[in-house]
Amino acid sequence: MHISHIPFTLPPIIYHLLEGKNTKNLLPGACWVWFLSLRQVLDFHHPHQLKEGLEGFSLDLPDQPETLEQILVDCRDTLKYGVKTAHPRFFNQLSSGLDLIGLAGEWLTSTANTNMFTYEVSPVFILMEEILLRKMQSIVGWSEDEGDGIFCPGGTISNLYSILVARYHFYPEVKTKGMAALPQLVLFTSEHGHYSVKKSAAVLGIGSENVVVVKCDERRAQTPSVTLLQGLAPFYVNATAGTTVYGAFDPLIAIAEICHRHTLWMHVDAAWGGGLLMSKRHRMKLQGIERACSVTWNPHKMMAVPLQCSVILVKKKGLLQECNQQGAEYLFQMDKPYDVSYDTGDKSIQCGRHVDAFKLWLMWKAKGSEGFGSQVNKCLENAEYLYDQLRRRTDFELVLSSKPEHSNVCFWYIPPSLRNVPPGPDRNSRLHQVAPQIKARMMETGTVLIGYQPLGSKVNFFRCVFSNPATQQEDIDFLLEEIARLGSDL
Amino acid sequence: MHISHIPFTLPPIIYHLLEGKNTKNLLPGACWVWFLSLRQVLDFHHPHQLKEGLEGFSLDLPDQPETLEQILVDCRDTLKYGVKTAHPRFFNQLSSGLDLIGLAGEWLTSTANTNMFTYEVSPVFILMEEILLRKMQSIVGWSEDEGDGIFCPGGTISNLYSILVARYHFYPEVKTKGMAALPQLVLFTSEHGHYSVKKSAAVLGIGSENVVVVKCDERRAQTPSVTLLQGLAPFYVNATAGTTVYGAFDPLIAIAEICHRHTLWMHVDAAWGGGLLMSKRHRMKLQGIERACSVTWNPHKMMAVPLQCSVILVKKKGLLQECNQQGAEYLFQMDKPYDVSYDTGDKSIQCGRHVDAFKLWLMWKAKGSEGFGSQVNKCLENAEYLYDQLRRRTDFELVLSSKPEHSNVCFWYIPPSLRNVPPGPDRNSRLHQVAPQIKARMMETGTVLIGYQPLGSKVNFFRCVFSNPATQQEDIDFLLEEIARLGSDL
Repeated sequence: MHISHIPFTLPPIIYHLLEGKNTKNLLPGACWVWFLSLRQVLDFHHPHQLKEGLEGFSLDLPDQPETLEQILVDCRDTLKYGVKTAHPRFFNQLSSGLDLIGLAGEWLTSTANTNMFTYEVSPVFILMEEILLRKMQSIVGWSEDEGDGIFCPGGTISNLYSILVARYHFYPEVKTKGMAALPQLVLFTSEHGHYSVKKSAAVLGIGSENVVVVKCDERRAQTPSVTLLQGLAPFYVNATAGTTVYGAFDPLIAIAEICHRHTLWMHVDAAWGGGLLMSKRHRMKLQGIERACSVTWNPHKMMAVPLQCSVILVKKKGLLQECNQQGAEYLFQMDKPYDVSYDTGDKSIQCGRHVDAFKLWLMWKAKGSEGFGSQVNKCLENAEYLYDQLRRRTDFELVLSSKPEHSNVCFWYIPPSLRNVPPGPDRNSRLHQVAPQIKARMMETGTVLIGYQPLGSKVNFFRCVFSNPATQQEDIDFLLEEIARLGSDL
Repeated sequence: MHISHIPFTLPPIIYHLLEGKNTKNLLPGACWVWFLSLRQVLDFHHPHQLKEGLEGFSLDLPDQPETLEQILVDCRDTLKYGVKTAHPRFFNQLSSGLDLIGLAGEWLTSTANTNMFTYEVSPVFILMEEILLRKMQSIVGWSEDEGDGIFCPGGTISNLYSILVARYHFYPEVKTKGMAALPQLVLFTSEHGHYSVKKSAAVLGIGSENVVVVKCDERRAQTPSVTLLQGLAPFYVNATAGTTVYGAFDPLIAIAEICHRHTLWMHVDAAWGGGLLMSKRHRMKLQGIERACSVTWNPHKMMAVPLQCSVILVKKKGLLQECNQQGAEYLFQMDKPYDVSYDTGDKSIQCGRHVDAFKLWLMWKAKGSEGFGSQVNKCLENAEYLYDQLRRRTDFELVLSSKPEHSNVCFWYIPPSLRNVPPGPDRNSRLHQVAPQIKARMMETGTVLIGYQPLGSKVNFFRCVFSNPATQQEDIDFLLEEIARLGSDL
């Protein structure tokens, strides 16, 4: 085996070994995607079934070591009863796919087994993080002399950081004195914004009721009304670039204007939409993001980097460090022989921090910025294809009639029994049952996986999202046929 | 290659391929440790050197894809210029080593590339997490009908959770109303406790000045004085089981008594010391931990699980869920076909959450509880060996004269020029320079790595910690000889 084949052949090797097959004639690269496409997306079992132990797969923890043979059976069964998120027919989550270079990056990261707190123990990874953050800041549109950031364990923590540094920026005394020293803070997000804003407000001691939820029109946030600002201390607005369900983009320029006028911190939650900045064709959907004070961007979503890879970017340099540093002497000694400004661990709300930068760095090397752009374009083309198919069919109904902005496409399946029922509460309450019933059957058959939810006054509908560049048009055709098949008797 | 060799041979294969060697005659297992022992711990370069690009290793991100050959050179160089934390002579951090089964677990986790929010996308991993948490709770000493918990991105976040749920337990209105609705909260930790308690108090809006720092005697926390409690609202005490520098255990039973008397939340930060619970010989050092309301325990430290693997255990069932849930409908639908109490994602302050449970589960299968116990015993034997060597030598001085409780051993090297200088401020200020100078030379030679810091009135001293079971007595002998060699002209 030549070195150049490692990142391509290792995953199929694992699979073949686990299946007991010969590895000699493996084709590199395409194998992995190919074999996944032949398999089920999942092999569903209820919690009690897995806990009882299936065919020698026991989850219990022993006092004595088990044999190596048993360990390998355990590994095989863990994969077998899991969900194949890399399957081209897995449409259930914003993160999907399995980039082979990204996977190789994650394997190398595990092998290096180090921590992001100091340059001393992570010289290369710390620099890669800095270079990636700088690149992402310039893509957002910030100048060379502004911009800071850190990799975080997920988009919710990235959003938490944004509120944390915004609060510290306006009220630095909060760090030592706490909220008792502050006026009653209020922040804004939209009704389609991610729940992490409320969750973070609760964690930070601001209180979830002090999050003012701005109404949306059919698709996106209306600009927050200034009359809401009286009598309290508003300080922060979260604008969403790529909402979770609709994939909609809030009006960033209008929100930037309001934030400027009222001296509010403008955060853009581009966890899902940030990837579109990589595409020349789609990046104008985020126009205005350069005016944000902070940005959340999850490469593990639209850029298909393996989980977890999320970033918080902060325009004001040094703020993260000032806000979070506690200067522990056992870790951040000032008398080290190198430039200790590279000991970035005290910028973080964590102490130990997993290396999430390397896999993104390696993928960037392997694809180039342009490769990420094409990948994003392909996912959005898939969304348009699905949208076109849905418009053509009479057994499906689109939730939003206009073309998708991101790769989210939302729709109802209308089963035979509802096709002639007039719109109204009766049809709605029956339609509300359809998606959960089909989803339950889908999990049993395991051929495809897609999510559903209600939103506002809209009853349960399917949300299809594309972030796996391995998905082809035939997978999309299959999805619709399979939903129709599973719901044909409803 | 037979299936049973996978977890053992893959890391050496990667190494050999990267070095261009033949893989045919590889010995499984021991190879990895063996090859590491032959290599340097690090090959130090300053940030500007790495950023300028060394022998074709450029950190810059391209627009166009690079060749696969270049990607592989990049991988090799990333490992080359990194730090070998698995090296038996890496004593720099509480986490070290590289367990091969743990590594295999991490590789499988990356291959599965899924997320911990719902049973729907992580059926097996969610159950493994539950079973591990249950096991760890029973080892802590909690009964079957109490105990909850979650895997977190590091010990600092685990400690943050403990304060978060304690606050919610006493003042549930904080979730919606924020700190404005609460009295002035105060919490306690010791001067040797981890800085994460102050960091978390800042994040949570309590304020770092409202952390009362309890004095320590030479080694461990004195019990907090009740006179400190007047006029404010004390609610939480952090007791440390295994302090970062000395590895000391706070008097848990006395602290439990005080917490009981004053209705305070007792948290035990056993991030570092928790591993000793696995050893029949050492677990009595944590007596009283069963009375804690919450416990932080990092298997990635003393149990040598690959980074990151940290747990917060909470005695009161349901509290994590109540404290953190926001019930997002797109993710946590109630009309799913399975028991949705297994959708544990809303217990978390994250949304997406990396799978950290599997590698620990797999290691537990492979070692059994007893295997972890022996591993811990071996590390503490290494500490005793070092302690004995230091007592015997005249060129070293112990910081604490009594035997180590954990695997931390703290000492000064006394260079020739200081051996006849009487104790006093002059000697202290010169001794303070010794460890940083030796450490700087150590980083240049790259033969061994150990940390240092001052603490309280004690000037810079080395702290050796053992968590890598691959370390042998000869590595310890080497450490002392190397320090003496590097400092012989000081």
